[in-house]
Amino acid sequence: MVEIRTPIPVSEAIDRVQAKVRRLGSENVPLEQAYGRILAKPLIAAHDVPAFDRSPYDGFAIRAEDSAAASGENRVAFVVIDHIGAGAVSARTLGPGEAVRIMTGAQLPKGADAVVMLEQTQETPIPEAVLRAADNRTRTVGAEQTESQTESQPTSPSAAFTIRKPFAPGENVSFRGEDMREGEEILPEGSLIHPGTIALLATFGHQEIEAAKLPVVGILATGTELLEPGAALEPGKIRNSNGPMIAAQLRRMGVPCRMYAAAADRLDDMLDTVRLALGETHCLITTGGVSVGDFDLLPAVYERLGAEVLFNKVAMRPGSVTTVAVLDGRYLFGLSGNPSACYTGFELFVRPALLAMMGAEKIYPMRTRAVLGEDLGQANPFARFIRAVYDGRTVRPAGFNKSNAVSSIGRGNALILLPGGTRGFAAGDEVDVLLPGMEEGLAVWQA
Amino acid sequence: MVEIRTPIPVSEAIDRVQAKVRRLGSENVPLEQAYGRILAKPLIAAHDVPAFDRSPYDGFAIRAEDSAAASGENRVAFVVIDHIGAGAVSARTLGPGEAVRIMTGAQLPKGADAVVMLEQTQETPIPEAVLRAADNRTRTVGAEQTESQTESQPTSPSAAFTIRKPFAPGENVSFRGEDMREGEEILPEGSLIHPGTIALLATFGHQEIEAAKLPVVGILATGTELLEPGAALEPGKIRNSNGPMIAAQLRRMGVPCRMYAAAADRLDDMLDTVRLALGETHCLITTGGVSVGDFDLLPAVYERLGAEVLFNKVAMRPGSVTTVAVLDGRYLFGLSGNPSACYTGFELFVRPALLAMMGAEKIYPMRTRAVLGEDLGQANPFARFIRAVYDGRTVRPAGFNKSNAVSSIGRGNALILLPGGTRGFAAGDEVDVLLPGMEEGLAVWQA
Repeated sequence: MVEIRTPIPVSEAIDRVQAKVRRLGSENVPLEQAYGRILAKPLIAAHDVPAFDRSPYDGFAIRAEDSAAASGENRVAFVVIDHIGAGAVSARTLGPGEAVRIMTGAQLPKGADAVVMLEQTQETPIPEAVLRAADNRTRTVGAEQTESQTESQPTSPSAAFTIRKPFAPGENVSFRGEDMREGEEILPEGSLIHPGTIALLATFGHQEIEAAKLPVVGILATGTELLEPGAALEPGKIRNSNGPMIAAQLRRMGVPCRMYAAAADRLDDMLDTVRLALGETHCLITTGGVSVGDFDLLPAVYERLGAEVLFNKVAMRPGSVTTVAVLDGRYLFGLSGNPSACYTGFELFVRPALLAMMGAEKIYPMRTRAVLGEDLGQANPFARFIRAVYDGRTVRPAGFNKSNAVSSIGRGNALILLPGGTRGFAAGDEVDVLLPGMEEGLAVWQA
Repeated sequence: MVEIRTPIPVSEAIDRVQAKVRRLGSENVPLEQAYGRILAKPLIAAHDVPAFDRSPYDGFAIRAEDSAAASGENRVAFVVIDHIGAGAVSARTLGPGEAVRIMTGAQLPKGADAVVMLEQTQETPIPEAVLRAADNRTRTVGAEQTESQTESQPTSPSAAFTIRKPFAPGENVSFRGEDMREGEEILPEGSLIHPGTIALLATFGHQEIEAAKLPVVGILATGTELLEPGAALEPGKIRNSNGPMIAAQLRRMGVPCRMYAAAADRLDDMLDTVRLALGETHCLITTGGVSVGDFDLLPAVYERLGAEVLFNKVAMRPGSVTTVAVLDGRYLFGLSGNPSACYTGFELFVRPALLAMMGAEKIYPMRTRAVLGEDLGQANPFARFIRAVYDGRTVRPAGFNKSNAVSSIGRGNALILLPGGTRGFAAGDEVDVLLPGMEEGLAVWQA
């Protein structure tokens, strides 16, 4: 007897999987290990950024009002009363006609409200009157100051320059809080921690972050035909490539896994192994054994375990036999034993489920459009996922295209998604492309 | 005195960096740790795949010629003489009107040249004549066979079925070598090892692979204004966010790093640290200190070390002060201290250089086109790289857009690339987008 299964659309299959998500908890992770993890809390700005008004350029801090009369015919002069690098703070307050030499990133001195870029200035001798006045000041104040004097507080003007245009208050100033305001939510909970996120976390002084716990995933490749990678080929046998492939798909997400083995043709052994695996992991991925063939034991395993089968047929090629079941809140992903189908099933169902367990915001593969580089003539009532090479503009099948092909998974970097229906597709058509190699994808699956 | 630097175009800067690449050697890596590494040798098919003619479906292997007369009105019957799962090999050779029940992936029995899918068959009683003949055969042959008999060699027909259409020779057969031919180059040297590659490697039984050695990269964040992530804020200071960010950019590539520290305002200390780092790493990334400001010591460091400066100004924003030098075949990447500039400089110059050191084929960021979601009015003579959010169709700036912004690096997943020139860009324009979060990019930088 052939069991009749009713295929459901991919988007419904995805929805049924998502409906069963149970969130994992969170844990503290050192910043150096946080790349690739999911933020368990929104990232809130702990202080204004910049934390102070600062100069975005190398140049001179001035009082804008002093520059009002400047023009090409009437260059206005400033004397430089201090000289500070980034990280230093001038102890001086600018008076009329005074400037402080300032480096990129340095805090504006008191009284200053504009920055003249170095290349907007022209050196000029320090006026005699200024030198005399400074000399007097040094003699009067110098003695008292010897104790408290700092490097950033010179006692006499060091240089002078002229400018040829007026500056507006605030010109060339990075204002306190212009990038981020204290208390502002910068990233929502569920954001992927990528290198830019690390920069943000470091900016606010987080040495540890609260990240979603990682699921532990079991992998059980079933099939009486399977040899382990090291084994010599035997008649009728193939090596287990799905297990290592899924381990790498998990590794790409930073998710750890455990490998299991069971005699593929003995139900009791399969049952014991699946029970063991479910006790040690958050979900179990099996490959193979989900068809209606006489040696496909997984349907019986689900039944004996009392697992709820969410679906056992999806209107997609390859991978139509993909089955997902749930037992005690744990997923049993029954992926097809065909490598291409297995790869696709992982990206469509497993990865989004694992990301959702971590509370991630963007759980679906990045999807874009590209121009088809060659004909894909045959129409198919089922949605088709074709391993493909994408170069940012065009996409073309990665060679031999059957669900049991391995070469095309190795050669491809993308999946063409053709909707099910009555039409074929020709070179030049624009088609949907999934990019599983993209660090972070999209929040929504577009049916 | 303001030093005048001559900016060079981004593509020329990239070329100058690439011209100095020195390849690292290779090493053996266990398959489980190979994800993300670069193949040091082409991957050659060690045997045909499939290694034998096999069935892509659950069904029955038949001799196509026996089905020639089948039609809806004239169903043709077959008797099932054996029953094999994947991995098993039938000891029987098909005679006229005989079939072998066969599972997905199983090797075709001798004599068979087509597969009837299970759903294309209809059960029928085993003809009396066949049963009688089989009974005789069992009595004659049974005794001799008790020792050598295997599970895949039943002694009597187990079932029978009819079909209603003729099958062509080769129909529903996966032929030996149709996916890959022994000796064929499947992937070139320099390919990124992604999960699909792992499937290929496992298929051919590689437990270890020869991968390019990983470079070790030093990171030295300079700047008198820098506090370490754990430190409390002080007036005029900011925390070092570039160091942790670059470490994460390296980690995204699977490349290890070492952190260095030096007093940013003491030339001798900087020199000692840079020398130390160059002795312990394959290249050193510094951030900050490359401007023409009085506290920017890196130009002096390059000079004192006798390093060859490849360029010290690039016609790009942010990051125009990016400097790259080479000493004894090791790179000194002098990235801007501004976080956005630093991020961009890493993706444009450092990552391609590191990948090229590993002999990678696709060293440049994935680049695509997308519709601009908002105006970017201002024209700029320099090429602009704007941190952005890309959703597969449109792209828009990730908020506050200044080179010293941190928020936009954390919020973005892409870089808009606007060519330098006289025009601004408006919402609806199609623009270039770089995707640094894509596992593998492109082989060519498009100027």
